[in-house]
Amino acid sequence: MKLLRYGPAGQEKPGLLDADGRIRDLSAHVTDIAGATLSPDGLNALRALDPASLPLVEGNPRLGPCVTGTGKFICIGLNYSDHAAETGATVPPEPIIFMKATSAITGPNDVIEIPRGSLKTDWEVELGVIIGKTAKYVSEEDAMDHVAGYCVINDVSERAFQTEHHGQWTKGKSADSFGPTGPWLVTRDEVADPQNLPMWLEVNGHRYQNGSTATMVYGVRFLVSYLSRFMSLQPGDIISTGTPPGVGMGQKPQTYLKAGDVVTLGIEGLGSQRQDVVQG
Amino acid sequence: MKLLRYGPAGQEKPGLLDADGRIRDLSAHVTDIAGATLSPDGLNALRALDPASLPLVEGNPRLGPCVTGTGKFICIGLNYSDHAAETGATVPPEPIIFMKATSAITGPNDVIEIPRGSLKTDWEVELGVIIGKTAKYVSEEDAMDHVAGYCVINDVSERAFQTEHHGQWTKGKSADSFGPTGPWLVTRDEVADPQNLPMWLEVNGHRYQNGSTATMVYGVRFLVSYLSRFMSLQPGDIISTGTPPGVGMGQKPQTYLKAGDVVTLGIEGLGSQRQDVVQG
Repeated sequence: MKLLRYGPAGQEKPGLLDADGRIRDLSAHVTDIAGATLSPDGLNALRALDPASLPLVEGNPRLGPCVTGTGKFICIGLNYSDHAAETGATVPPEPIIFMKATSAITGPNDVIEIPRGSLKTDWEVELGVIIGKTAKYVSEEDAMDHVAGYCVINDVSERAFQTEHHGQWTKGKSADSFGPTGPWLVTRDEVADPQNLPMWLEVNGHRYQNGSTATMVYGVRFLVSYLSRFMSLQPGDIISTGTPPGVGMGQKPQTYLKAGDVVTLGIEGLGSQRQDVVQG
Repeated sequence: MKLLRYGPAGQEKPGLLDADGRIRDLSAHVTDIAGATLSPDGLNALRALDPASLPLVEGNPRLGPCVTGTGKFICIGLNYSDHAAETGATVPPEPIIFMKATSAITGPNDVIEIPRGSLKTDWEVELGVIIGKTAKYVSEEDAMDHVAGYCVINDVSERAFQTEHHGQWTKGKSADSFGPTGPWLVTRDEVADPQNLPMWLEVNGHRYQNGSTATMVYGVRFLVSYLSRFMSLQPGDIISTGTPPGVGMGQKPQTYLKAGDVVTLGIEGLGSQRQDVVQG
């Protein structure tokens, strides 16, 4: 299934993308794409519905973030060997964990707002993993049982805030609009191999990132297990698993976003995003 | 006012501590101590109530975290010059920001659970600042208008997870039970000077921390303004403002928590906490 949330910001309704790419309203069945709806039982209840029986949503509504009630927006740093190299870093012997503010989460096609004082707002296409069932001290073997599905994330990053203001990356990862999430949550059963997904990102039509989750250092299964040693994971939590090469800070010369730019990105099977860049 | 939440975990009700130290039930007036209840208008509506008219809560119920709906649990690192010195670090020229998982938040007297594999679980008494009104690009002059009140926080920390597992402090700050919060939110009007509050922490009756917010490097007013440049702050967000000297890693030899220990801590005017330490 492809689950989504549509409507004005803060007033989104739950929906499902049918086989013809049309939005069907799930409001009569679940209050939102969050919490228990993401559990194995919750998802099975939605699978039992006939999409054709659900009200068709007319027009072309805004899409919100494809999940809500997110308690943690956890990111993995330097998780592609080629990306580590382009930033002058080496792949760490254990995953780097940092947090984005949940208040950074926006819809997949909402604007990216360059923070005041920013000169280095950058992009990062990433595979997002959405937790469906509480995970604490889970083995790698059992880890995937705790994953509801996947989505596209743009881990927008301000490089000066991240590394030139004395301490901890969260400072450059958390501005409002720095976490476009969606367009939809694709349930785990529809993603044959999360470690073999082509992914791409363009700015004004120029392709900067052209990678695959195949070159991820620490894969989804390992990450869920690893993270669950350090914190419990709850339904709706998002793990953004790192970015392949091609970010702005890796260009020669370095290239950053400016008002008027258009960012497009996508992951095979998970859909695509489009963001207009504005000055905050 | 002193606002609190009482009852079993996950089923807390909102309450108010009256002048005699008794809990009064606020359920008829607000759904919880969260969101709009923390706004200036929301707090004024509660101030207009006569505590004597509110139902008295009998017995000695568990206290939950004094606020809920917390989207961000933001911490400031090395924010007391003496504490920086004891950890071998220097005070940074700008505040260090990191995040604790919101899933770490517990009641003030709940257990501290030592994570599996932990050898270095440590304590940190901190002044918590609870946001009452959205803050984005706010000046220092206006910053305090966005503060609902204050509380005691124990920023429990696993030092090996924090610094010996390759990257970003959040890894050692986020385990379940690592964020005792309360006993109550003391509204801003009742704290004459947040930069002059004695604070202390004991383990098994031995006083390890004995400080004051007077030696905080970056004060509350500055921190709210500074943070709001990097992320928006929402009602219910918590800023834990750093710890004075006396943490376990600063002892000679270093001293860490073990199952059976009892941690007590408090801040003048904000109440105290007590945690039994158990093995996770």
